[in-house]
Amino acid sequence: MKEVKIIEVAPRDGLQNLQAFVPTDKKIALIKKLAHAGAPEIQIGSFVAPQAISQFRDVREVARSVHRLRGVVPSALVPNRRGAEAALACGISRLIFFFSVSSKHNYANVKQSPPDSLKELRLICRSLPADAAESLRVDLATAFGCPFSGNVTTAAVLRAVEKVATLGVRKITLCDTVGFGNPRTVEEKFSECFRLFPEIQFGAHFHNTRGLAPANALRAYDIGVRSFDSSAGGLGGCPYAPGSSGNIATEDMVFMFESMGIKTGMDLKKLLKVCDWLQKILPQAKLSGALFAAGLPDRIR
Amino acid sequence: MKEVKIIEVAPRDGLQNLQAFVPTDKKIALIKKLAHAGAPEIQIGSFVAPQAISQFRDVREVARSVHRLRGVVPSALVPNRRGAEAALACGISRLIFFFSVSSKHNYANVKQSPPDSLKELRLICRSLPADAAESLRVDLATAFGCPFSGNVTTAAVLRAVEKVATLGVRKITLCDTVGFGNPRTVEEKFSECFRLFPEIQFGAHFHNTRGLAPANALRAYDIGVRSFDSSAGGLGGCPYAPGSSGNIATEDMVFMFESMGIKTGMDLKKLLKVCDWLQKILPQAKLSGALFAAGLPDRIR
Repeated sequence: MKEVKIIEVAPRDGLQNLQAFVPTDKKIALIKKLAHAGAPEIQIGSFVAPQAISQFRDVREVARSVHRLRGVVPSALVPNRRGAEAALACGISRLIFFFSVSSKHNYANVKQSPPDSLKELRLICRSLPADAAESLRVDLATAFGCPFSGNVTTAAVLRAVEKVATLGVRKITLCDTVGFGNPRTVEEKFSECFRLFPEIQFGAHFHNTRGLAPANALRAYDIGVRSFDSSAGGLGGCPYAPGSSGNIATEDMVFMFESMGIKTGMDLKKLLKVCDWLQKILPQAKLSGALFAAGLPDRIR
Repeated sequence: MKEVKIIEVAPRDGLQNLQAFVPTDKKIALIKKLAHAGAPEIQIGSFVAPQAISQFRDVREVARSVHRLRGVVPSALVPNRRGAEAALACGISRLIFFFSVSSKHNYANVKQSPPDSLKELRLICRSLPADAAESLRVDLATAFGCPFSGNVTTAAVLRAVEKVATLGVRKITLCDTVGFGNPRTVEEKFSECFRLFPEIQFGAHFHNTRGLAPANALRAYDIGVRSFDSSAGGLGGCPYAPGSSGNIATEDMVFMFESMGIKTGMDLKKLLKVCDWLQKILPQAKLSGALFAAGLPDRIR
């Protein structure tokens, strides 16, 4: 059977650029609704310092409320060992560390060089219990281009993958952080990754900034990617392209794969209800999903 | 060299669902600006009865003003022989006839059955001068699904193609009139068309109603389609899915192909200026293009 895994990032990537603080109970409700719609894994937030991203100042409370939700794996971003320890203490055992392939973006994002981020990753790997270390995922941001330094070569991505793989990490996601990827670069980067690192499970994280995320996801699927991040309603924006959409909308991604006969395990009607609810509780947020605007084609099988 | 032909449909498909009449001089200006941006062929309007689509009541005047524009082929939709004759009399020699694979949609659209539309097509083919007959294109609407009757099978599309091909037509476009297609059905329908009708030049006309048009265009390209319709700014809506986007935006399509190293002959910066201008003269129209919202990634090569 053909299937893909959709990892829901709305509670993390979707909320992190919102100006308004989303109340804790609403965050918990969002995560529960997404779980009810069939999301197999949900990024519940980031264990960052409150002064870095104020939206996540309640991440511990959120984590403690959802870490035992049935049928869903809650995961969280951790920028450093302290964040990793905090996440584990709250019952979150699937951790995601991230850094940018592009130095300039890494400095802008986490105020250190990629080699320093790798040092932090090494500390995390050493300190984690075995099961958390096994399921640790590393996100390579700006793998398809950087808003500050432009093109990011496949060679640079491969070097970063190698350094991460050397530490024993087995899940690596290439992130098109600002919507610079296209089907050709998606094919080029992922196919080299698969060729050189057959032991790694590669995932894709595409933003729909310039409308190409569905095409990029299709090409990634074509060449073997089976794990995709997306955000319900396309919630989230891109700070480098004001007014544009952010993450690819989960319902659009699910619609594409399901209509192609590729199972996601998610329920589109329930997902669209989550979008309705999101639009109600976040009236100022722009939901960019196409399916949410157009509705399901219920006359088509 | 890899290349595709982008056929601009904003002056026709983009305008036809607008409530407000766009003044003749603005239509002419739009066509000239699109030609200046490098569009190799532009659908300038439909030669329909004014009571059918009031927006095109000035189509003769538009046609006479643009039919000699340098470097661009103006084409027009014609629903019947009278329309074809009127178009030819105004100097438009590339004609496009259309009917729906789905009976219900054809009745709703042109108030006759598909067989009656085929009879009309036969009359047109017989009456056309040789050069116009050679470049005649036939659009098969609802080739990927119908808002009234749901699924449209590949077999039904192939039967329609066969009937059209028998009349000597050599250009046939499969149209996803309401955004029901997905990469799997695109692959299935076009690959069967190529296999069974190698003498036909097949084109694709995708609507982005549910966000899949770029992925559908990519898949169509993968299996050999080299002619794509699109509308500047994504101008146009879908009467069957209010609030959704219509045709895939030309600038998004051009961006996808050009970023993949596939030439379109079009100038993205000029295209985005056309979008700016369109938004100014049509403030009530929703421009749905992603690139227009996000801007060009000028730091990326």
